[in-house]
Amino acid sequence: MSSDSRRNALLDTWTETSSHVFNSVVAANRVAFAAFGVQPSNGDGGLETVERIEADEDLPEWHVELTAADRGRLGVGNKVEFTKTISDDDVAAFAAASGDTNPLHLDDEFASRTRFRGRIAHGTLVGGLISAALARLPGLTIYLSQDLEFHNPVRVGDRLTAVCEIVEDLGDDQFRLTTRVVNDGDVIIDGEAVVLVDELPDA
Amino acid sequence: MSSDSRRNALLDTWTETSSHVFNSVVAANRVAFAAFGVQPSNGDGGLETVERIEADEDLPEWHVELTAADRGRLGVGNKVEFTKTISDDDVAAFAAASGDTNPLHLDDEFASRTRFRGRIAHGTLVGGLISAALARLPGLTIYLSQDLEFHNPVRVGDRLTAVCEIVEDLGDDQFRLTTRVVNDGDVIIDGEAVVLVDELPDA
Repeated sequence: MSSDSRRNALLDTWTETSSHVFNSVVAANRVAFAAFGVQPSNGDGGLETVERIEADEDLPEWHVELTAADRGRLGVGNKVEFTKTISDDDVAAFAAASGDTNPLHLDDEFASRTRFRGRIAHGTLVGGLISAALARLPGLTIYLSQDLEFHNPVRVGDRLTAVCEIVEDLGDDQFRLTTRVVNDGDVIIDGEAVVLVDELPDA
Repeated sequence: MSSDSRRNALLDTWTETSSHVFNSVVAANRVAFAAFGVQPSNGDGGLETVERIEADEDLPEWHVELTAADRGRLGVGNKVEFTKTISDDDVAAFAAASGDTNPLHLDDEFASRTRFRGRIAHGTLVGGLISAALARLPGLTIYLSQDLEFHNPVRVGDRLTAVCEIVEDLGDDQFRLTTRVVNDGDVIIDGEAVVLVDELPDA
């Protein structure tokens, strides 16, 4: 992908500008035990969550590290990290939400007979931790591109950290970042992202 | 990312070989109404699904198209497509599973004040449909890399199709594919993947 195609694609479509603030920066260290809404099953064979996550919520086991508090001063060297544990529920939820019901992720017995000798999490789910980290940059993060190279498998219960660092200011509020997911020192995913960081809209 | 690093990274770590068959090919047109297991909430603040998807399951609204039935004859030109609708539950489930609680995805009022003038689905969730398509290739699909370029936003209720086509046989059961997600003709995501397709393990 060329840098040019990255920079034009989304912006041609979405022309309005906006202004304002994404609370996750503030919420980073908040232990927010959510007034989860209970959703009854709708009985049509769809899959539903019992408890719904709220916007800007952080679960107690999640952890955020951020070196930039101010969108206006974002630049090369700023880092954001997001840590969470991959649970069995996460894997089941991602399978239903994405449609990826590969038994390598869902069936212990099947997976035990593969080269992995047991179940592993979906690579794209693990890539979602990068999205979670980027969302916590100051401002409103909009994804323009993401490259992912999968290096090591993830087991249910692994505690992973996505580490994102701005390596280039592309202008027009766009930034290129290195994006890596690590598990206790082992690189799980390596790659790069380009994001647009809008101002948060006025309240 | 160099092609070399792609091809070595995973395989150095996972040395065992395997053999056998991924049922999704067979299951592609099966309307499987799942014996969903009911999971009680565990009361520790975690998020749980009411109904769990099963390995190789296809929900009635999902649709698969596949031009190759035989792993041994996979090659350039073979295509796999996977179609599903992105629901509000999918977005909520992905937010919890990934940790990306960006209000652009979860808060109607907030999102209405952004350049999108309403909520949009997470790009990485939409990328998951590519993983779902690749999982339905004949054999056991293992992700080595994925590049994603996000071109257009997705709304709750949009029905999307991931279209993947093998464009290069890299040898050693590895293939490079173009990967695209479309919404009624509009390109949502464009990119490329490299996968390893193992034999399915013996039953």
